[in-house]
Amino acid sequence: MIAPPKALIFDVFGTLVDWRSSVSRGVAAAFEGAALPVAPDDFADLWRGEYQPSMAPIISGARPYQPLDVLHRENLDRLLDRLDLAAALSEAEKSALTRIWERLDPWPDVPFGLIRLREHALIAPCSNGSIALMSHLARHANLSWDAILGAEIARSYKPDPKVYRASAAAFQLPPHQVMMVAAHNDDLAAAQALGFQTVFIYRATEHGPAQTTDLSPSGDWDIIANDLNDLANQLFDKPDPGSPR
Amino acid sequence: MIAPPKALIFDVFGTLVDWRSSVSRGVAAAFEGAALPVAPDDFADLWRGEYQPSMAPIISGARPYQPLDVLHRENLDRLLDRLDLAAALSEAEKSALTRIWERLDPWPDVPFGLIRLREHALIAPCSNGSIALMSHLARHANLSWDAILGAEIARSYKPDPKVYRASAAAFQLPPHQVMMVAAHNDDLAAAQALGFQTVFIYRATEHGPAQTTDLSPSGDWDIIANDLNDLANQLFDKPDPGSPR
Repeated sequence: MIAPPKALIFDVFGTLVDWRSSVSRGVAAAFEGAALPVAPDDFADLWRGEYQPSMAPIISGARPYQPLDVLHRENLDRLLDRLDLAAALSEAEKSALTRIWERLDPWPDVPFGLIRLREHALIAPCSNGSIALMSHLARHANLSWDAILGAEIARSYKPDPKVYRASAAAFQLPPHQVMMVAAHNDDLAAAQALGFQTVFIYRATEHGPAQTTDLSPSGDWDIIANDLNDLANQLFDKPDPGSPR
Repeated sequence: MIAPPKALIFDVFGTLVDWRSSVSRGVAAAFEGAALPVAPDDFADLWRGEYQPSMAPIISGARPYQPLDVLHRENLDRLLDRLDLAAALSEAEKSALTRIWERLDPWPDVPFGLIRLREHALIAPCSNGSIALMSHLARHANLSWDAILGAEIARSYKPDPKVYRASAAAFQLPPHQVMMVAAHNDDLAAAQALGFQTVFIYRATEHGPAQTTDLSPSGDWDIIANDLNDLANQLFDKPDPGSPR
């Protein structure tokens, strides 16, 4: 068995918060009354679909670091153009809609699960979200962090090794004492390649009921957990095998 | 009157925590039994006396950024040499003593004062302490931060303008919407020159009963407060002058 980690770092979008339902709700509210040619869920998926391509030039170094809030706004503008909706929202409404990413609801196990895990280890997001976004989201979703780590302190985006390394370095810990927690196999593969411990969390409806990706662990991860409470049980609440019950 | 800030950033050592008493207690415990040629309070002062000179080459760019934990340890080693105590502590004891800076006690008003202020604004340390140091200290002293900002995200030390600017930028706010809170006039002068709002907090015994510096505000600061509760009262709990009492 692995040694208990001194810190746990977390993917956030999808692993801790249900971005799709929350964004969908925000989209429905923003377009209330205006004609929307796609369902709000589909709008959320299309918006999220711009996420990876928008980070690629920053990871490659072709573009200087921009916080995710800027990319979210650019991606929204691109999507609105494509759907012929550029004039449907005012500038202020577009800004407000972009900030829906600061008010995503947590999966039900998350607020208490983080409190339990934090009794035993430092905890921080290792997300592509900016410090500002993560700070506001922590308030909305009740995430009790020790620090906000991740993309912004590294000025790049996952899966760039810099992001994982900078997060462990901020806690002054070597990767093998830090556990990366994610619902995404590719995120865990990037962390494991650098020597981090890894936990796969099942989030089978992150992309809605028809999800086809990340339905199960595809790598040799240290722990597979149903949710954060299960993770806390497996990591820190093991019965002592030597003692009578 | 100034507009209420959207974020408050805080000096920590001296402003929020009583480093001198806490370090003194740690020194007394570390040398228990061993001869200490100076009083523990004086040892704390001498150790802290190395603080500014050790940061200077990093601020000037002559030395790459090192987290404050590294400087604290180097400064301890230098002081132990000077007092002919290099052999009095083991390597493990020196490491442990250096970590006393992660367990400084807060001034009595601080834990609840931060909770009150956090109801109205984002709050973060803008300290020279590292992210790791500030994370551990936040647990010990019950400091409920939104994020850990300050020296490490800027990779320099106050009063380098980069440190204040990086802290406001992390919250995606212009300096005039951010308030710097400190018990030190020079810290406030550096922040005010960059457009930050400023609060002077009285901490007349930070350096012990014979303190001679920073006993009173020496600049044109926006708010002068006796402690964080007084600050919360002045900023966010003002009686409405137009309403009957």
